[in-house]
Amino acid sequence: MKWVESVPNFSEGKRQEVVEAIIQEAKKIDRVWVLDWSMDKDHNRSVVTIVGDGEQVAKALYEMAKKAMELIDLRTHKGEHPRMGATDVIPLIPLQDTKVEDILEIAQGLGEEIGNSLGIPVYFYEKSATAPNRENLSDIRKGEYEKFTEKILSDDWIPDFGPRRVHPSAGVTAIGVREFLIAYNINLNTQNLGIAKSIAKAIRNISGGFRYVKALGMELEEKQMTQVSINMTNFKKTTLYRVFEAVKTEARRYGVSIASSEIVGLVPLQALVDTNDFYLQLDEFQKDRVIEYRLLELLGEEAKSKND
Amino acid sequence: MKWVESVPNFSEGKRQEVVEAIIQEAKKIDRVWVLDWSMDKDHNRSVVTIVGDGEQVAKALYEMAKKAMELIDLRTHKGEHPRMGATDVIPLIPLQDTKVEDILEIAQGLGEEIGNSLGIPVYFYEKSATAPNRENLSDIRKGEYEKFTEKILSDDWIPDFGPRRVHPSAGVTAIGVREFLIAYNINLNTQNLGIAKSIAKAIRNISGGFRYVKALGMELEEKQMTQVSINMTNFKKTTLYRVFEAVKTEARRYGVSIASSEIVGLVPLQALVDTNDFYLQLDEFQKDRVIEYRLLELLGEEAKSKND
Repeated sequence: MKWVESVPNFSEGKRQEVVEAIIQEAKKIDRVWVLDWSMDKDHNRSVVTIVGDGEQVAKALYEMAKKAMELIDLRTHKGEHPRMGATDVIPLIPLQDTKVEDILEIAQGLGEEIGNSLGIPVYFYEKSATAPNRENLSDIRKGEYEKFTEKILSDDWIPDFGPRRVHPSAGVTAIGVREFLIAYNINLNTQNLGIAKSIAKAIRNISGGFRYVKALGMELEEKQMTQVSINMTNFKKTTLYRVFEAVKTEARRYGVSIASSEIVGLVPLQALVDTNDFYLQLDEFQKDRVIEYRLLELLGEEAKSKND
Repeated sequence: MKWVESVPNFSEGKRQEVVEAIIQEAKKIDRVWVLDWSMDKDHNRSVVTIVGDGEQVAKALYEMAKKAMELIDLRTHKGEHPRMGATDVIPLIPLQDTKVEDILEIAQGLGEEIGNSLGIPVYFYEKSATAPNRENLSDIRKGEYEKFTEKILSDDWIPDFGPRRVHPSAGVTAIGVREFLIAYNINLNTQNLGIAKSIAKAIRNISGGFRYVKALGMELEEKQMTQVSINMTNFKKTTLYRVFEAVKTEARRYGVSIASSEIVGLVPLQALVDTNDFYLQLDEFQKDRVIEYRLLELLGEEAKSKND
C-alpha cells in the first residue's frame, strides 16, 4: 500500500453540519481513514486529516472538494485566516515508505479532475509547483478570494488546471505535495525573550541555521518562560534531536536550561525511530522492527484485498 | 480491540512443511496476523509470532497446538533445546493498551481447552502460575519430556488442566502470561571482559540493580569489544534509556565509552515513546500522537467489524 496523508483545509469553521458532510465523503471511500478533524470559529476554517492508499485518498479529496463546493459560498465567507477557495488548500504528504516522487502524479490527477470536472481553477505549490513563484502557498493566496478575479487574468497566474475564471462560490484551490511538517516547541527556563529570539535565529535556515527549520522566539506568559517555536519542514533531513541538542547548546551559552519540549499534533513513527537511534546509539535499527509498524503493513494489505 | 501477542514454541526445527502447516492454522483465524516465524535445526525447534485480538489469538493457538499434536512426536524428537511438549510453551503478552490482567482469563480458557479437549496436561507459569514453584518456566520444564511421566505423579506437579498423564506424542504444554521481553545489548569500547561483567552485575536485579533487568558480560571476538547482554523483562517499569544511561555511567568509571547498542528482534512502540519523552524532555506526549498507532487502532476496529 502506498500510504499518503492529506490535511485539506476548508473555509467553514462555524457550521458543524457542513464540515461533517464533507468528512462523510471521505468515510465512504475504501482504504481511506479519517484520523482527525478540527474547526476554528474565528478563522472560520476547518482542517481534516485523512490517511490511506494514495489513489484512494485522491478519490476522497475529489469528493470532499465537490461537497465543499456545494455547501460553502466564498461570496459571503468571512474569517481571520486568509483563504481563496471553499477547499482552500490540499497538501499531500508521504507516509511510511512512500516518497515525495511517488505522489506527484497523484497530485496531478487530482488537480486535473478538480479543475476540469468541478470547474475550479487549481494551482500546484511546493514540490508540485510548475513555476518558482508558485512554490510558496502564501504567494498563490495573496489577494485572497476577493482579488483573484483580477489576479487570474495576469500572465503569471494562469491556472495549472481548470478554467481561467474564478469559480463564483468555490473560488480557487491549491494542491501541493510536501514533506510532513512537525510543529515543535522548546521551552526555556528564562523569561528573557531576547535569549529565545537569539536561539531561534541561530537554528533557523533563513539566518544561517538548519535548512529545514523555521523558528521564532516567543513569550510564554502563563508559564513564565520563553519558547523557541519551530516548524520542522523536513524532519528526515533536519532531525528533531539535532535541533533539540542545538537549542540546548545555544541556551547553555546564556546559562539557561531547557524546561521541556512539545510536539504539537501528530508525528510519524520515523521521527521517534531517529531519536532512539541517536540517543541509544542503536546499530541497524529500522522502523520495521517496531511491532505496530509491522502490524499496520499487514492490516493495510488486508484492507486492500478485501475491498478490491 | 484487545491486542495480544503470542510467541508459541514448537518442537520442530527441521521439517519446514510441519511448521508451515502449524502456521497455516493461525492464518485461518480472523483478526489474527502472523508477524514472524523462525526455525532452528540444532535446537530442533521453531518460534512463531502471532498478534491479534486476544480471544481470537487463543483460538488460533488451540488450532496450532492441535496441529502440532498431530504432526510432532516427542518420542522420537531430539534437539539441543530443552523441551517437554510438541507445543512446548505458549507465552501470552499484552500489546498496545492491553494489560496483563486483561489476558489472564484468556490464558485460563486456552489452558482448559488444550487440557480437556486435546488431553495434553497444561501448566501455567509466570503471571498465570498457580503456585510459586511454577512461576519459572525452567522449573516446570526440568527433566523434560523423558522424565515427565514420573514427575507428573508427584504432588507438586499435578497439571493445572488436563489428564494426570503425559500425552504420548505431544507431551505437556506450559502457558504463561508475561510482559513483553526486550533483548537489548550494549557494546563497550573495551576488550576487557571484567569491565563488561562488572557493569552487568551493577545493573541486574539479582545483584542489586534494576528490578526488571537480567544481564551478563560477554566477549564479542569479531568486533574486538565486549558486551553487556541484557534481558529487559518489563520495559515499562525499567526503561531502555535508564539502563542505557546506567551502563554509560558505570563504563565511564573505567574510562570506557559505549560503542553502540542493539535491540534484538521486535519492540513495541511504547519503548520508543519512552526514549523520546526522556531525551527530548517532552511534555504530555503519548503514543496516540504517533500516526501509525492511530491508524492501527482504526484498521483494527475495521478488521473486527468486517469479520463479525
